[in-house]
Amino acid sequence: MMDLSAFETLLVHKNDKVWSVTLNRPAVANAMNLKMVNELSQVMDLAVEGGVRVLVLQGAAGNFYAGGDIKEMQAMAKDRQTLASMNRAFGTMIEKASQLPYVVVAVLQGAVLGGGLGLACISDVAISDKSATFAMPETSLGIIPAQIAPFVVTRLGLTQARRLALLGLRISASEALSIGLVQQVSGSPEALEKDVDRLIKQVLRCAPDATAMTKALLHQVGNVPMDALLDQAAEDFVHTVAGEGREGALAFAEKRKPEWSVT
Amino acid sequence: MMDLSAFETLLVHKNDKVWSVTLNRPAVANAMNLKMVNELSQVMDLAVEGGVRVLVLQGAAGNFYAGGDIKEMQAMAKDRQTLASMNRAFGTMIEKASQLPYVVVAVLQGAVLGGGLGLACISDVAISDKSATFAMPETSLGIIPAQIAPFVVTRLGLTQARRLALLGLRISASEALSIGLVQQVSGSPEALEKDVDRLIKQVLRCAPDATAMTKALLHQVGNVPMDALLDQAAEDFVHTVAGEGREGALAFAEKRKPEWSVT
Amino acid sequence: MMDLSAFETLLVHKNDKVWSVTLNRPAVANAMNLKMVNELSQVMDLAVEGGVRVLVLQGAAGNFYAGGDIKEMQAMAKDRQTLASMNRAFGTMIEKASQLPYVVVAVLQGAVLGGGLGLACISDVAISDKSATFAMPETSLGIIPAQIAPFVVTRLGLTQARRLALLGLRISASEALSIGLVQQVSGSPEALEKDVDRLIKQVLRCAPDATAMTKALLHQVGNVPMDALLDQAAEDFVHTVAGEGREGALAFAEKRKPEWSVT
Repeated sequence: MMDLSAFETLLVHKNDKVWSVTLNRPAVANAMNLKMVNELSQVMDLAVEGGVRVLVLQGAAGNFYAGGDIKEMQAMAKDRQTLASMNRAFGTMIEKASQLPYVVVAVLQGAVLGGGLGLACISDVAISDKSATFAMPETSLGIIPAQIAPFVVTRLGLTQARRLALLGLRISASEALSIGLVQQVSGSPEALEKDVDRLIKQVLRCAPDATAMTKALLHQVGNVPMDALLDQAAEDFVHTVAGEGREGALAFAEKRKPEWSVT
Repeated sequence: MMDLSAFETLLVHKNDKVWSVTLNRPAVANAMNLKMVNELSQVMDLAVEGGVRVLVLQGAAGNFYAGGDIKEMQAMAKDRQTLASMNRAFGTMIEKASQLPYVVVAVLQGAVLGGGLGLACISDVAISDKSATFAMPETSLGIIPAQIAPFVVTRLGLTQARRLALLGLRISASEALSIGLVQQVSGSPEALEKDVDRLIKQVLRCAPDATAMTKALLHQVGNVPMDALLDQAAEDFVHTVAGEGREGALAFAEKRKPEWSVT
Repeated sequence: MMDLSAFETLLVHKNDKVWSVTLNRPAVANAMNLKMVNELSQVMDLAVEGGVRVLVLQGAAGNFYAGGDIKEMQAMAKDRQTLASMNRAFGTMIEKASQLPYVVVAVLQGAVLGGGLGLACISDVAISDKSATFAMPETSLGIIPAQIAPFVVTRLGLTQARRLALLGLRISASEALSIGLVQQVSGSPEALEKDVDRLIKQVLRCAPDATAMTKALLHQVGNVPMDALLDQAAEDFVHTVAGEGREGALAFAEKRKPEWSVT
């Protein structure tokens, strides 16, 4: 298994079933480059192998992530093929991130721009403190929110997505809460830490296989015909009743915590 | 026609065009079993034959419905086929419930858990009092919200659905209001009764055929190609103008209530 | 090019890249007839040819638009084919309106009913003052919201759409804000004017080609398979980096406004 300290652009900290991943290019407000895209993709897979149940995604030094690096992009503009591949690689990574078989918690502070806003949109739970500001500034820079558009529309709906994207608006944490971009806003950085710990405990109360199957099921809605979806869901249901559900029912009857919640 | 007092698990009360259906297994907080699934399905069909315009769905003794019966499930776990069929039968029932050609009002008090939350999600209007608490506790019990997942995602969007399902959160009536799970919260059980009466009157102001056609039309959005949808809608429009719309226009001109609203 | 003063049912005012279009049948609260449908469709195309970047859509004399003309419809009910064609023409117009390659701002006052509510739903930004009231009164008149249904569901989600359509509810500006029908409510007609000016300036800060491509991209979400969408988006991204993005990056580096924002 890879050495988790070998990443160039990420800080990865593993605490049993909880992995903490920090985007770590503070000099450029953690702007994403191809290296970071690849490392993020790698760590997501390693986490599966390592039996992760919650991945906490955050940014170093008070910012989540301030979009792509404009200078770098212009430098690459002559080599169109490379630029297209790099942009597309972000899409491959974020699409994978949106469907991981474990829970992803995005912890948002400072700048949450462009691709950073995109990553917030694929989290299972997004929480911020009041320092966070959110924007899709692409059109104001003459470019487009290419790879994140589907995930923003899925998260916010077409109405809010078009308003943010077409006006390049910068919004506060409380407005982000009101449109469902984040689901919780903590009063201070200290409160944020405690709230994240509470979220992690909440996730660990839920059974890992049931979590993975439920997440997959929710993602299939609208993409699989209803009857096929419900047929498969009934099979999966029986599978869980005979599996983790036995321990769940026992723990419930015995008024104790199920095994999986004691980590 | 079936005797409405013959149901084992339901109390059914018919008042002209308004049917009131009460889930009635108070000893188990109205937990759904196969009998109740079948009877609920039956009563929905009988209501169509009986010319229903509003079906009010509620639970007995202060709870709406507290999910499936965990003991019963574990007892059936050995007979996988039966358990799968029973689970799937719930899906067939709730899919039908979501597309009934009349208005369904869910009146929610106390526990609204699992399948109960699912049923709330297919209602045309959901109203609760402050006693209601809402949760999808499945993953915390080691199982999955199999048959309700599509209806929860349709109601709440993927973002709120995954948060509730993956964290097993219990939320209050006011949070349920803020995410659109219910659309109205009454201050007390007494206020709830009055508000439900007002909702019923509101529904009865609307023409029954137009209501059925509008509900079908709304459900087709996203499932039928846009041009076909609008072509059919134009045909249906003409049909209503020449039908109920004549009375509607007359009543409007004569500043009186249309016939259908005087029941 | 057509004389913009030649429209019968519209007032059109052109100020460089900003077109202002006023629905102008104040005697009938700007109720839509076939003439207005056709003229609206025409002006949307003319605006593209004229290099429009923002189209502001509003109603004359304190109302946005109070639905179709009930008398006219009944008069046409005998000629079913004509009535169906007229209804369908509205759908063709509103479908085009929803996907225009420039930003549409709906400015809403007074009655916003039926098709008026539909038009609000296809805007990129909808803003109202407190005088605005919103309803889909069709079913209470015995008819159906035929051509607007898809756009209302897309805007509000199935849950709010069915509540409004099946109950014929009339809602206030603040409730319209809470369900995302409008995104901003101004305190007075005077404040509304200033807020609209601010919105226009905000739009003009964004590059026109990037705006058109972003809007098209957002509309494709859910209608084009994910991989194809992201592939195309990567191509489009490179196109903008090499196009407007060059000026965007330069302006950013030189801490000045990009050319497109100085109009």
